[in-house]
Amino acid sequence: MSGFVSFVSSGPGDPELLTVKAVKLLGAADAVLFDDLSSGPILTHARKDADLVGVGKRAGRPSPRQDHVSQLLVEYAATGAHVVRLKSGDSGVFGRLEEEITALRQAGIGFEIVPGVTAASAAAAAANIPLTRRLTARRLQFITGHDVTGGLPEELNMAALADPEATTVVYMGKRTFAALAERLLVAGLPPETHALIALGVSTPDQSLSCHTVGELPEVLRAMETKAPVLILYGPLADEDLPR
Amino acid sequence: MSGFVSFVSSGPGDPELLTVKAVKLLGAADAVLFDDLSSGPILTHARKDADLVGVGKRAGRPSPRQDHVSQLLVEYAATGAHVVRLKSGDSGVFGRLEEEITALRQAGIGFEIVPGVTAASAAAAAANIPLTRRLTARRLQFITGHDVTGGLPEELNMAALADPEATTVVYMGKRTFAALAERLLVAGLPPETHALIALGVSTPDQSLSCHTVGELPEVLRAMETKAPVLILYGPLADEDLPR
Repeated sequence: MSGFVSFVSSGPGDPELLTVKAVKLLGAADAVLFDDLSSGPILTHARKDADLVGVGKRAGRPSPRQDHVSQLLVEYAATGAHVVRLKSGDSGVFGRLEEEITALRQAGIGFEIVPGVTAASAAAAAANIPLTRRLTARRLQFITGHDVTGGLPEELNMAALADPEATTVVYMGKRTFAALAERLLVAGLPPETHALIALGVSTPDQSLSCHTVGELPEVLRAMETKAPVLILYGPLADEDLPR
Repeated sequence: MSGFVSFVSSGPGDPELLTVKAVKLLGAADAVLFDDLSSGPILTHARKDADLVGVGKRAGRPSPRQDHVSQLLVEYAATGAHVVRLKSGDSGVFGRLEEEITALRQAGIGFEIVPGVTAASAAAAAANIPLTRRLTARRLQFITGHDVTGGLPEELNMAALADPEATTVVYMGKRTFAALAERLLVAGLPPETHALIALGVSTPDQSLSCHTVGELPEVLRAMETKAPVLILYGPLADEDLPR
């Protein structure tokens, strides 16, 4: 008897930004393996008798190793359980989905992926701006502020990232944005390019503030927060941004 | 007495991929102004006595002018109504949100934006692949296949788009991808780069097929469909893709 895993994207934090499908699957699962950012009120949708297992790996805190998470997922499913693997935002965007999928395939366990609202969409919505705009922001790109090593990736496509006609969203960029900003300015991005910092998007801790790329390293240095930090820069609809 | 507009993202098509918040707002609105792709089963969430107004602008068919849509939105809200402006996918991503926001600001009408699941997330989920992968696909970018003129934008950042280490998603790219592919290959993207075509993602018409960037122009030429076409290319998790 083989179980089944639903990778369920939990959205940016607000339980109302779960999809209808996510709510249904949470209510049906035998076990829910969740990340830190997918916990709290979102888990109230789970069955009362479901196993709830935290496998968080939040930046800056010791966390279970990825291979341990994958192993746990396989073990739960191998008991015949329907497992929901809850991942914050959209699980396909910087969600390290691949390692867990590979483990399930190797174990012959079926799975599905349920997409969700990624943090970039929620941040822009909270700031009342679109992510793309005709003529001025025709390309939208997402990068992560840290790679496997925890630092800024060595090889970055600076022609892509310093493009003043793209909206760029940096996920988990608080610690490394200063280094990125330095390279962006060298690559020709104007320091006065608008930049939005979004903390704890769609949660009670949400905080938005608008600066410039040149100011951002200083602003981020002075910022003490444990909430996830998203940075958006580019030709944002600046007249509308919170100051 | 002034109304209020909720820009509600309806997701890629499957009514189960609406957010909980979207369902609530649809059930409360006095009027719903919807695009073609947000119609059908999604509208069953609207109140029985709500005004349902189609303002579709689907590629290839004559459609209401954008300023007419904005005007209609202002007129509905000015009656004091709570209006849901339903936009497919995530409204902030190629949803032409800005024009309508500007019209509301000018008329002094309040609004909110409710984010949703963008088609790229749903397409990758349907194909059982993540959009980003550690080391090999660390940047994710979205562009649209046509600009204001209906053609491929003249100025494209080819260093960004021909990057073999990014996952690129082209929204509404069916008509113009052949021209883009030509430029991608000139800019150095290997013709054997994997490319996924996703039609009608998350709808009963959904169809996924995997090719290479080099093959894609021919494949698209032979393809007859009225469903929206999404093209993903890059270091996709190719061993997992549908053929």
